[in-house]
Amino acid sequence: MSTRRKFIKNASIIGAGLFLAPQFSYSSNGSKNDKLNIGMIGVGLRGTHHLNNLLLRKDVNITAVCDIDPVRIDLVLKSIENAGAKKPEVFGKNEYDYRNLLALEEVDAVIISTPWLWHTLMTKEAMLANKYAGVEVSAANTLEECWDLVNTHEQTGTHMMILENVNYRRDVMAVLNMVRQNVFDELVHFRCGYQHDLREVKFNNGKQPYGGGVEFGEKSTSEAQWRTLHSVKRNGDVYPTHGIGPIAAMANINRGNRFVSMTSNATKAIGLHNHVVKGGGENHPNAKIKFKQGDVITSVIETANQETIVVTHDCNLPRPYSLGFRVQGANGLWEVDGNRIYIEGKSKPHQWDTATSWLEKYDHPLWKKYGEYAEGAGHGGMDFFVLNAFVESAKQNIAPPMDAYDAAAWSAITPLSEVSIEKNGEPQEFPDFTRGKWVKRQPYNWIKDSH
Amino acid sequence: MSTRRKFIKNASIIGAGLFLAPQFSYSSNGSKNDKLNIGMIGVGLRGTHHLNNLLLRKDVNITAVCDIDPVRIDLVLKSIENAGAKKPEVFGKNEYDYRNLLALEEVDAVIISTPWLWHTLMTKEAMLANKYAGVEVSAANTLEECWDLVNTHEQTGTHMMILENVNYRRDVMAVLNMVRQNVFDELVHFRCGYQHDLREVKFNNGKQPYGGGVEFGEKSTSEAQWRTLHSVKRNGDVYPTHGIGPIAAMANINRGNRFVSMTSNATKAIGLHNHVVKGGGENHPNAKIKFKQGDVITSVIETANQETIVVTHDCNLPRPYSLGFRVQGANGLWEVDGNRIYIEGKSKPHQWDTATSWLEKYDHPLWKKYGEYAEGAGHGGMDFFVLNAFVESAKQNIAPPMDAYDAAAWSAITPLSEVSIEKNGEPQEFPDFTRGKWVKRQPYNWIKDSH
Repeated sequence: MSTRRKFIKNASIIGAGLFLAPQFSYSSNGSKNDKLNIGMIGVGLRGTHHLNNLLLRKDVNITAVCDIDPVRIDLVLKSIENAGAKKPEVFGKNEYDYRNLLALEEVDAVIISTPWLWHTLMTKEAMLANKYAGVEVSAANTLEECWDLVNTHEQTGTHMMILENVNYRRDVMAVLNMVRQNVFDELVHFRCGYQHDLREVKFNNGKQPYGGGVEFGEKSTSEAQWRTLHSVKRNGDVYPTHGIGPIAAMANINRGNRFVSMTSNATKAIGLHNHVVKGGGENHPNAKIKFKQGDVITSVIETANQETIVVTHDCNLPRPYSLGFRVQGANGLWEVDGNRIYIEGKSKPHQWDTATSWLEKYDHPLWKKYGEYAEGAGHGGMDFFVLNAFVESAKQNIAPPMDAYDAAAWSAITPLSEVSIEKNGEPQEFPDFTRGKWVKRQPYNWIKDSH
Repeated sequence: MSTRRKFIKNASIIGAGLFLAPQFSYSSNGSKNDKLNIGMIGVGLRGTHHLNNLLLRKDVNITAVCDIDPVRIDLVLKSIENAGAKKPEVFGKNEYDYRNLLALEEVDAVIISTPWLWHTLMTKEAMLANKYAGVEVSAANTLEECWDLVNTHEQTGTHMMILENVNYRRDVMAVLNMVRQNVFDELVHFRCGYQHDLREVKFNNGKQPYGGGVEFGEKSTSEAQWRTLHSVKRNGDVYPTHGIGPIAAMANINRGNRFVSMTSNATKAIGLHNHVVKGGGENHPNAKIKFKQGDVITSVIETANQETIVVTHDCNLPRPYSLGFRVQGANGLWEVDGNRIYIEGKSKPHQWDTATSWLEKYDHPLWKKYGEYAEGAGHGGMDFFVLNAFVESAKQNIAPPMDAYDAAAWSAITPLSEVSIEKNGEPQEFPDFTRGKWVKRQPYNWIKDSH
């Protein structure tokens, strides 16, 4: 496929993002050259999940895998063998061995599922190596890294996609459908966030990925090895995209609208310390750690179209999961908490409707068509859709639905929130990563069922 | 009663606020002198509601009423006559005739239910005239007015109470009970607000108080005559206390804690214009009005104890009512939206409980004891409790549960939000209305069932 890709590359940089329809079921007699050759960089829990979903597709080859943990490599080689697929080239001799993967002619695209501090560097180098890059969330840690993504994309003409799966959640896409059909009328206000008790993700016993102990860093395993340090060292919203991604799509951010400024305020940080003491006692070494990340962080974004977006980060306290979505327009609103919708003239005055029937009525065409398959055993639900959009975009070498500008704008929430919190909520300006082009860039051609 | 009041006045300025228990049912053989003589300033819909509740009590006399609208005066004189009570003195010749009411020896206390711009002036003059003052919400429009309340209280030794009824709502008091019993453990984060579609309050046809037309100001009646102008001229949270009052009580604001700073962000203002056009057409004169108040205003307060409080003002768009409460601590949280509670170790992991059984279990002693009466026909529910606290505090001439410092701090949200919004969310410092005394002032003795 590589030749065709190079041929059409320069013509397609400008292409509008699509919520691409899956073709997997139709590419029955595709030749080898119609297949997308994918290299997996990072095959921890998340990368393996992506790999397993990709192995179900007929239009991709896994040509290379990279991980510094040989246990993970063994696991995925076994999966690949079990799937009857060809053995990929293996990398992982050291932390920079991914560069040798990127040098392979037999890799068209890469999926990057590594610790956060590697995301931007690997994505940037993938684009420089002319590999269509998919990167897990968040995409960047600092404003400089946000610019790296944008500048490298513009310099190389190579695309990258931020693999934000929540943009493909069924309720989110139904509400996006309602937004596009103007059910809420002009949009005014949004809420979202990541409210997820991660204490057993941030600490474990070194044997199991979740809980069982209060270790992090070297004495732990899985995400606790690297993720928890961001709670020790940084007071900011370090994980904004599950919330802001869907809202950004609805609000046409970078496509006729943009984030203008943001205030952030953090509470005290007591949740993680309490968790360590409860699980390990007051004399556990980690009980001495001073966690910097406030337990609840509230950011308020102002947009160019004069909406506001409240973004919450709430990951260190006991609580049930909620992304806290609210989408409010001149004609009514959706709130995920309480599962409710009110639409003037349709709902009884001053009374909520249960959202369910609205969400069914406006079920997104993609979900209607492929939902049964996607939610079937092992296909990943929303993960199927996000991966599919990546694969289809990469096969055509067109701009993905969620591109470098989106990755930059969404990820910028992290460093901007840190500065604002440090200054007791002082508003911070968002860089305009589109260099002014947001005024003419077009919204997602989200309904297009291509081909 | 006046002599006794003067006698004990100076000794009692410092008294801690109480959630006073009702005595109405026990003051069976009270002499005239045990009764509190109340003057009503403003008898619109709200003042009349208070009056009707007071007429049910045996421990008060309505000795004076004041309103510039003779229709309202006629109505309440009839109510008073029907209740078999003595005819009060009547004032209302002009806007300043309340001063003659304040000069009456036969008035111990006043209840002020007038348009917002009169609240502070009347409350201040009441205290200067040695009348125990109850004032409807909000209490002040500017920071100077907030200081007026505090300074006049300190100068005169006379008390004032902000009549925030939501502090006495049954669910709110049950959650306050949970807070005091440490069910949530250390408090971290709060949400509240006033989310109420007021379009038919802000506009009417001049005949009925709610809706039927899109007039405000002189061509309208009831609240639309004066309230709507605040939406035309001011971009700020003009009505914060229904939300912040209950949260301030739980967070011990001014009693070991205080509001430190606040950011506010407003959306565009389209709701009221849309409403005018929809109801009156594009050529209606009010369709030309440029409403300044953003439709959704989000404020984030930081407290001295390092909690954050998100306060929402959302009154111009179609939506069902919600005060949006959330109370979150190290051990769990309550959310009014969705009616749900999660308490670690009690609730199933990562799953919400329906709040109902928790709220019943922690039903506040006052509600347990007097709830049946309060919610009986015509007694006003939470309005019974707030009025009762006022009457009992005034009879004893002790500090009320919600005093001048509370009125000032809560009301300060309005002017501070205006400045912050004007500066795109720049954080504003709260004045310390207690002049440092918040560090030693004690929390409400809220459980005390006095006498």
